[in-house]
Amino acid sequence: MREPDELRALVEHGLEDLVLTPELGDLTEVMRYALAGGGKRIRPTLCLATAEAAGGSVEEALPAALALELVHTFSLVHDDLPAMDDDDERRGRPSVHVVFGDGVALLAGDALLTEAFRLALSYERVDVARELAVATQGMIAGQFLDITDADVDLGRLHRLKTGRLFGASIGLGVRVANVPEDVQLGWRAFGDELGLLFQVVDDVLDGDGYVLRLGTDGTRELAADAAERARARLGEIAADTSVLLEIVDGLAVRTA
Amino acid sequence: MREPDELRALVEHGLEDLVLTPELGDLTEVMRYALAGGGKRIRPTLCLATAEAAGGSVEEALPAALALELVHTFSLVHDDLPAMDDDDERRGRPSVHVVFGDGVALLAGDALLTEAFRLALSYERVDVARELAVATQGMIAGQFLDITDADVDLGRLHRLKTGRLFGASIGLGVRVANVPEDVQLGWRAFGDELGLLFQVVDDVLDGDGYVLRLGTDGTRELAADAAERARARLGEIAADTSVLLEIVDGLAVRTA
Repeated sequence: MREPDELRALVEHGLEDLVLTPELGDLTEVMRYALAGGGKRIRPTLCLATAEAAGGSVEEALPAALALELVHTFSLVHDDLPAMDDDDERRGRPSVHVVFGDGVALLAGDALLTEAFRLALSYERVDVARELAVATQGMIAGQFLDITDADVDLGRLHRLKTGRLFGASIGLGVRVANVPEDVQLGWRAFGDELGLLFQVVDDVLDGDGYVLRLGTDGTRELAADAAERARARLGEIAADTSVLLEIVDGLAVRTA
Repeated sequence: MREPDELRALVEHGLEDLVLTPELGDLTEVMRYALAGGGKRIRPTLCLATAEAAGGSVEEALPAALALELVHTFSLVHDDLPAMDDDDERRGRPSVHVVFGDGVALLAGDALLTEAFRLALSYERVDVARELAVATQGMIAGQFLDITDADVDLGRLHRLKTGRLFGASIGLGVRVANVPEDVQLGWRAFGDELGLLFQVVDDVLDGDGYVLRLGTDGTRELAADAAERARARLGEIAADTSVLLEIVDGLAVRTA
């Protein structure tokens, strides 16, 4: 079983080696700028760890894992636009639209999303791309709630905006590993808790979301509960989930 | 063989009956506003006409045809944004961003694109969605050239921005009709001419593009040549292409 750091390195190399549609010309440089932001690569790493824990091949899961990162990156590029959050910085670097302009950033996001589907469609099976499409719509539904509903239920918002892509990280991992549908349910229950854990810790680190409603201590408790439930779900899965447990422990105590 | 008007009515009903991802909530109303603009539905109509002419089922081709219209509509919603062309009107109605705001329009475009893939993925075969992804990247490449390259080669621009989705209209039609790959080539050659014809006539109607370089008369000649070549390509196909010929004739003399 490969360690999280090793899997993350595979993701980084996979992104570096990724051949983007050549026809896009210079737009591929904009997409690479967005992808090279040095994120945590948590979604693709989770996907690879899940595939391996479920008895599948990490190499076979890589296109699905990269597709998840491309969808995530597309959402950040669009989120940062003046039309949305109007963020000038992302991970300590100028946002895509600040460097390349709003129109080019918009198109780079569109191309990243389309490229994600091209990757998910590199499989001969149709279910990988289908799950990616459904998860992406869930994420977009969350973004829509976020900018239109001031009194939004935070649990619902997080389940959509963050949770759906986390869920798909686990879901695509077990799919590629050919885990039977009924056995997938246990894995997916773990994915649901993991998405909540990630988002609640994010709220603690950013001082928003749940922190504004429950305070920092209350939100930390919520995170500890989510981590506990994620560990419990993992414990119910009949497989060596030790690498995933490491990832859970890392997410629970992360400081960035 | 159903007439173009009949096929277009099927597209309109298909769009009205289309179940968008319910999770998107009120964003589906924004998507419906964008889709209900009363366009010519030329791409999906072409797809259905091609499928039928090639011996396939119009009903089976409908999801692919609707997916093409959703990709086209997504591109219009994003094109109209202030970050791109900043158009306040589309087909005589206020643009999506004027009615719903820039952020919501951005997300509605993202959701239309994703929904297009969901539709293309309703087939058990993977090739329909693959061709849609490749064509969409070509279209985005064209949009990118359009906003970044003042001296762009118009032929190249049109082949990408307009031509690729027209090509996919024919391509998806023959795919769904299970036309063998080698026989598809003749159909696809027709699609290439058709995209050029559509765009050149567009330039005449809008007084831009080729009109600025060749004048109105020169551009009309270009359109007549493209129509002639499209008819010639159709004539080389061993099938009853009379309905497609009607569509070519309509495109050549259209005034809106």
